[in-house]
Amino acid sequence: MNRMELLAKLAVPEETKMVILVMDGLGGLPHPETGLTELESARRPNLDRIAGESICGLTHAILAGVTPGSGPAHLAIFGYDPLNYDIERGVLSALGIGLPLGKDDVAARVNFCTIENGIITDRRAGRISTEKNAELCELLSSIPLDGVEYTIQPEREHRAALVFRGPGLSDKLTDSDPQRTGLSPLPVKPSEPEPDPEAVRTADIMNRFLEQAAERLKDQHPANMLLTRGFSKLPHIPLFTELYKIRAAAVAVYPMYRGLAQVVGMEVLETGSDFSSEMETLATHWADFDYFFVHYKNTDSRGEDGGFERKVKAIEDADAALPSLLELGPDVLAVTGDHSTPAGLGMHSWHPNPFMLRSKWERRDAVASFGETACLRGGLGIFPAADIMGLMLASALRLNKFGA
Amino acid sequence: MNRMELLAKLAVPEETKMVILVMDGLGGLPHPETGLTELESARRPNLDRIAGESICGLTHAILAGVTPGSGPAHLAIFGYDPLNYDIERGVLSALGIGLPLGKDDVAARVNFCTIENGIITDRRAGRISTEKNAELCELLSSIPLDGVEYTIQPEREHRAALVFRGPGLSDKLTDSDPQRTGLSPLPVKPSEPEPDPEAVRTADIMNRFLEQAAERLKDQHPANMLLTRGFSKLPHIPLFTELYKIRAAAVAVYPMYRGLAQVVGMEVLETGSDFSSEMETLATHWADFDYFFVHYKNTDSRGEDGGFERKVKAIEDADAALPSLLELGPDVLAVTGDHSTPAGLGMHSWHPNPFMLRSKWERRDAVASFGETACLRGGLGIFPAADIMGLMLASALRLNKFGA
Repeated sequence: MNRMELLAKLAVPEETKMVILVMDGLGGLPHPETGLTELESARRPNLDRIAGESICGLTHAILAGVTPGSGPAHLAIFGYDPLNYDIERGVLSALGIGLPLGKDDVAARVNFCTIENGIITDRRAGRISTEKNAELCELLSSIPLDGVEYTIQPEREHRAALVFRGPGLSDKLTDSDPQRTGLSPLPVKPSEPEPDPEAVRTADIMNRFLEQAAERLKDQHPANMLLTRGFSKLPHIPLFTELYKIRAAAVAVYPMYRGLAQVVGMEVLETGSDFSSEMETLATHWADFDYFFVHYKNTDSRGEDGGFERKVKAIEDADAALPSLLELGPDVLAVTGDHSTPAGLGMHSWHPNPFMLRSKWERRDAVASFGETACLRGGLGIFPAADIMGLMLASALRLNKFGA
Repeated sequence: MNRMELLAKLAVPEETKMVILVMDGLGGLPHPETGLTELESARRPNLDRIAGESICGLTHAILAGVTPGSGPAHLAIFGYDPLNYDIERGVLSALGIGLPLGKDDVAARVNFCTIENGIITDRRAGRISTEKNAELCELLSSIPLDGVEYTIQPEREHRAALVFRGPGLSDKLTDSDPQRTGLSPLPVKPSEPEPDPEAVRTADIMNRFLEQAAERLKDQHPANMLLTRGFSKLPHIPLFTELYKIRAAAVAVYPMYRGLAQVVGMEVLETGSDFSSEMETLATHWADFDYFFVHYKNTDSRGEDGGFERKVKAIEDADAALPSLLELGPDVLAVTGDHSTPAGLGMHSWHPNPFMLRSKWERRDAVASFGETACLRGGLGIFPAADIMGLMLASALRLNKFGA
């Protein structure tokens, strides 16, 4: 019996309300001059106040040293073992730009690339602008394919998402992207040695699409071809709402997190584009759900842009909006990040994330400041993010005991 | 190779003596006025002295957030993975009231209930008194059943234990208890889709028993029927005495813990009804065993009654009796709880348990006080209770090294 099966077996409905605030990419690294991380450098009276009333710790999404993508990091926060459940690249790309996905649809991640004499010379086509990308997607949006519909839409720079719709499609396909320059794009093939007819047919459709796309792109430069990878359908993931017997809602601005929440069974609430709007959405729907996933993106975006000060500011902005959340009086409030994004690195990192859990039924610790160093002394130690869900359910008194 | 197989492979006999004192339900939550837990509020000079000479930490019996029953919590302390080994409800009920169980016997947990027009209206029959329960068990103790003997005896209130004896019985049976009111009691059936003849026969015996029991109870009110669940035989658990090459004894007052100890291979010593008697028993048998499991129940009973001060007193009582244990000079002494039972909650909880291990061969830490908060700073951190056995064997110099 794994962790999720165990929690599902023990979970019971209750009246208590739980909120998890995920500040994307929250964890950081010390500024070389001050020795303080972005979080530790921020004015954060509300976060500190919550820390003083919480049990604190640090979480690993996957494993010490392993940097998580946003998909697995969030799955861990929702209680899924991120090594057993995966949302693949194609689906994440489609969800990430808000493309609706039906259960039979097959999504793929697209890179525009440069080829010369049939050989890939740049897998990112010189990182063309998103505007150019949109033009190319438009150019590719009307290729006639018998019996199947598709959508291709730009992500950022050279990245796009491609979704095929229609019954009888398979995602058991190999990539056309060889993942290296100096090679030709590969034909898409069924990925299994004895493929079913759906995979054969879908590979054929994909190759016809790619041939005609090549024809339409041939005079474009540098983006004169496209590469596809990560063919995937919506995964068969047990709904966390059913497992934990909760009515769950997501308050998130960015499409990918909204999509992720939907995949695990949450109702995705309409909200505005900033954190204050998210707080208002939370208040509006407070009566209707047991569990709220609130996602704050700016900590990560600012971290990835490499701006230490801008990430500090993003944390301060969130802190300032927290009183309205506290006024709702959640029985259980958890605050953490999905992964670290140190501004100095400018990308996701493996460092554990500060975590705090406030509930009437948790022991408190001596930590009264929300930061990476302070949380090290917290009562939860360093623990797997997949434990968060059990801790939240327990302190919401929503778990029966195990065994007699 | 799992943890237990590894330890079994490495274990060697030695002359050293190990004691684990399990103070049932030891861990607690802070008193709202003082911020101190029950343990932290107690006068505990001996526990503190041991802490000062120990390496300390906190244990999870199962998993963060998961509240253990006493069965799985003790199995973890004895080094079993509690998710892989389970002692089921029927056996625990029988052991809990001291009914002897042979290896072929099948035990079930019984609830007396109320039915009206064939429908269960109260699964607990208004929580009848234990005295009434005993009368009903007497009434049910002489139902003639061909070729099989049985015993039915009261637990507390509406609960009883039922044990069937005789060769060829099976425990692969479904419950007659539908676990809900508004339904009829269910017939007992073989639980497997293709049952063996023993299961078919045992189900038939059980249903004949239940029919005649219904007849004998029909004029009783409110307890005019009984429900059975958790049919089970003694589990096939590898004996921890054999695995670890130890002679082990249990000093426990309550039948359930005595039964648990017996299941894993310990010799269960005759003892009195209080902790001082347990200490005397320990001294009397000191020469004869390598490992002593000493169980102290009052910390849990007082916690479950919801009395903070009474739990504090129970801890102080145990502390006062400890010098006689220390005088025996165990090479390894561990003190912990099986689970937390915060008086404020009045039931088992998921919070990790304070733990300390005193041995000449352990590093000490700075912790000189035995309490939940102090143990957080201990040298063992927060760790699974199933690691305790390996730590005890190691510091008793009873484990070979792994690999060359």
